[in-house]
Amino acid sequence: MSTVDKYFELVDQHQQKFIETLREVVAIPSVSSDASRRGEVVRMGEWLQARWEALGATCKRVDPGKQDLHGVELDLPPVILGQYGNDANKKTVLVYGHYDVQPALLEDGWDTDPFTLVEMADGRLVGRGSTDDKGPVLGWLLCAETHKQAGLDFPVNLKFCFEGMEESGSEGLDDIIVAEADKWFKGTDVVCISDNYWLGTSKPCLTHGLRGVSYFHLQIEGPGADLHSGVFGGTVHEPMIDLVHLLSTLVDPNGRIKVPGIYDQVMAETEEEQRSYEGLEFSHNALAGDLKRDIIIHSDERMTLKHRWRYPTLSIHGVEGAFYAPGDKTVIPARVRGKFSLRTVPNMEPARVAELVTQYLNAEFAKLGSKNVMKVIETHGGRWWYSSPNHPNFVAAARATERVYGVAPDLTREGGSIPVTLTFEENLGVNVLLLPMGAADDGAHSTNEKIDKRNYIQGIKLLGAYLHEIAVTDLTATTA
Amino acid sequence: MSTVDKYFELVDQHQQKFIETLREVVAIPSVSSDASRRGEVVRMGEWLQARWEALGATCKRVDPGKQDLHGVELDLPPVILGQYGNDANKKTVLVYGHYDVQPALLEDGWDTDPFTLVEMADGRLVGRGSTDDKGPVLGWLLCAETHKQAGLDFPVNLKFCFEGMEESGSEGLDDIIVAEADKWFKGTDVVCISDNYWLGTSKPCLTHGLRGVSYFHLQIEGPGADLHSGVFGGTVHEPMIDLVHLLSTLVDPNGRIKVPGIYDQVMAETEEEQRSYEGLEFSHNALAGDLKRDIIIHSDERMTLKHRWRYPTLSIHGVEGAFYAPGDKTVIPARVRGKFSLRTVPNMEPARVAELVTQYLNAEFAKLGSKNVMKVIETHGGRWWYSSPNHPNFVAAARATERVYGVAPDLTREGGSIPVTLTFEENLGVNVLLLPMGAADDGAHSTNEKIDKRNYIQGIKLLGAYLHEIAVTDLTATTA
Ligand SMILES: [Zn+2]
Ligand SMILES: [Zn+2]
Ligand SMILES: [Zn+2]
Ligand SMILES: [Zn+2]
Repeated sequence: MSTVDKYFELVDQHQQKFIETLREVVAIPSVSSDASRRGEVVRMGEWLQARWEALGATCKRVDPGKQDLHGVELDLPPVILGQYGNDANKKTVLVYGHYDVQPALLEDGWDTDPFTLVEMADGRLVGRGSTDDKGPVLGWLLCAETHKQAGLDFPVNLKFCFEGMEESGSEGLDDIIVAEADKWFKGTDVVCISDNYWLGTSKPCLTHGLRGVSYFHLQIEGPGADLHSGVFGGTVHEPMIDLVHLLSTLVDPNGRIKVPGIYDQVMAETEEEQRSYEGLEFSHNALAGDLKRDIIIHSDERMTLKHRWRYPTLSIHGVEGAFYAPGDKTVIPARVRGKFSLRTVPNMEPARVAELVTQYLNAEFAKLGSKNVMKVIETHGGRWWYSSPNHPNFVAAARATERVYGVAPDLTREGGSIPVTLTFEENLGVNVLLLPMGAADDGAHSTNEKIDKRNYIQGIKLLGAYLHEIAVTDLTATTA
Repeated sequence: MSTVDKYFELVDQHQQKFIETLREVVAIPSVSSDASRRGEVVRMGEWLQARWEALGATCKRVDPGKQDLHGVELDLPPVILGQYGNDANKKTVLVYGHYDVQPALLEDGWDTDPFTLVEMADGRLVGRGSTDDKGPVLGWLLCAETHKQAGLDFPVNLKFCFEGMEESGSEGLDDIIVAEADKWFKGTDVVCISDNYWLGTSKPCLTHGLRGVSYFHLQIEGPGADLHSGVFGGTVHEPMIDLVHLLSTLVDPNGRIKVPGIYDQVMAETEEEQRSYEGLEFSHNALAGDLKRDIIIHSDERMTLKHRWRYPTLSIHGVEGAFYAPGDKTVIPARVRGKFSLRTVPNMEPARVAELVTQYLNAEFAKLGSKNVMKVIETHGGRWWYSSPNHPNFVAAARATERVYGVAPDLTREGGSIPVTLTFEENLGVNVLLLPMGAADDGAHSTNEKIDKRNYIQGIKLLGAYLHEIAVTDLTATTA
């Protein structure tokens, strides 16, 4: 029996024990956005460090400093850096995960206490953090422990980076990655992150792309103070009227961006990409069900995925400075800021996007003939990430997936951003793979967050199988 | 010397005493929107009642019941009804005013303590309520007191209605007016309200029109919950995108309403009205200064006044349900409500306005091809008020103005609403006159609210002269 098969057998034998370990960490309410829970976040980080150290890993606790959380000064939770194994003949894999979780209250609509893991008859393991991201973070630990306890050779040198602030903007993390790139992270061959989800609920996937995001404030300044619409309505240029006119020029109701030049930068589709959409586990029926109303723009499922993954999109988020409360108020707001953002894709450059948006809005504003003052402010310009799914890191993960699930994984991209992906790639200069453990319906940030027992147990196998595949993969092979 | 001349002489002699009385009432911080000040509001009402009763008036205190102010249950302040004199040979004038004030804090930017009246070297009497509406409310009292103390015959029977909730929506007042129309208010010949302002700062005016207001919520419902723009941007119909498109179809940046049929109901201009705009004290220079930025749409001052007084206008106030805080948030709001209102003028009917707006928005929404659900909700439909300036009540007030100021008053209308005006007219079936005491720059709801000593003292004369003119006016004369 091969080492991998032996490992799989042990994982099956230890299922209940692994669920108990998940129960133990779900019970630590490590909510990073809640000042009163900060001690629990730290406790969770210390739990991980202690457990890895007991296994023989070398750990370094990095404290990123102070945070101002709604006026309360708090210590940021530690980033736990680790090194497990240091054999010059083995490859080195860096894994990232986060041990903090989203807030959760029974009153929010949970069926059970969010910090008590409950195993449902249908196989769901329900609890806050079960899938995001405690399950995957445990996956790496349980894999290493299982190998050690059974005397199986661990196939790679493992480095890890576990943070406790992911759900609160990863404050402090980037600086640590930059500082440690040539130190703690030196020698890393590839990176693997398990912190996203399958496209559907039955078929595993590898994720090789993320969109960037450029966020804008469109500010219109009019009078020195808010005005009364009875006195001034119809006699002065109203900032809100200018604003709705400008916002309506950005995008049509079918999501088509009207800013000239935006689509010029979009990477053309290859035949290989075209083929990759075939057989993906994705249905409009399921999507419409999740949305509670069928408000899907496109009739073709592939078009929906393309607009999520490979085309830029523009969303309007809200207005600052106008009347927003329930009820009626007859104010003419003096200064308003429309908030909108573009999701960006290969090969758009954030600076060029900001330039096109600003030029266009200046031209559109000039057409209005308004005497108000308009300003476009780019508040954030984060780049997209795209990796070839033919890179040996992905090929190894695909082989591991086939071995565990008996099926070739879907190749997916995501519409959102996981900024740490790009930070690792840019600072370490190595390939990064996103290898999800959970399914699309896990409800990561919702009530009744769960991971299916199948995904958890097979996921622990998958992470191990991936490390074994990396061990025998030529990472220098040219990508197709 | 006529009674009126004698009265004027006495007012001049008692100037300093009248300022002291204003100081006394400004010192009572009767802020109706502040639960902690409710006792002061009641105290102010009781002060008025006691002072009128000392003069021999019959008063009736009406307590309108309970109010829920931000979760605190409070007694509404009393409406003080009064009758001063009951001579069957005299006409009966009903006057209305309010003894509550807007909030004011030194930290808001006042140069002096808002509840301490300060007489400035330039003649300003600065203090919260000085012009809105304590000065005018005192005017009626001081007029009656001066007549009595000097043994001058009071020319009319005076009824009064002073409320303490005007700055907080006049809660409870309408029911009282309806209930007392044939009781306490029985026998009223005309109504006079002094609670608005001159068009400029030097020339007195009479006000004979107010606009109505129809308030709408334009609701767009999309998914069952807010969505993440990374995952869903560009693939679903976004309520905010539909909303900005619809709002932009309502009005152009120059204030022209685009709802078909809206202008059809607008009363045509007569030659008399055309003439009435000549010589009005109104300048764009002063207006632009007040606004701190010249955002005035029209180049002709008469057009600005016409769009304030005699044309409907449409303002956009804000959006409920979208992201409104500072900073960035990449949400797709699930359900949004755009808030807008139309100011309405003779001869628009609120029901017809709501019908036109709803039909138009339904048609425009259909053009968008969105799968979201749109609904137009009319939350308020208050009618305009318009009175002929040739009515004897106005003619009497014009004569009184000439006598005090030596100049014929401007005839003005206002862009906003004073709902009680229409309530009195409709329920008592008599003419209502708006006779302002203060000037355009008094800053009624702002920091450093003031009434000029000139306006206060001449205003006390004006209210008395008006009552004397009413006494000798044939109120049954046909209006031209
Ligand atoms: Zn996560
Ligand atoms: Zn998360
Ligand atoms: Zn007032
Ligand atoms: Zn007021």
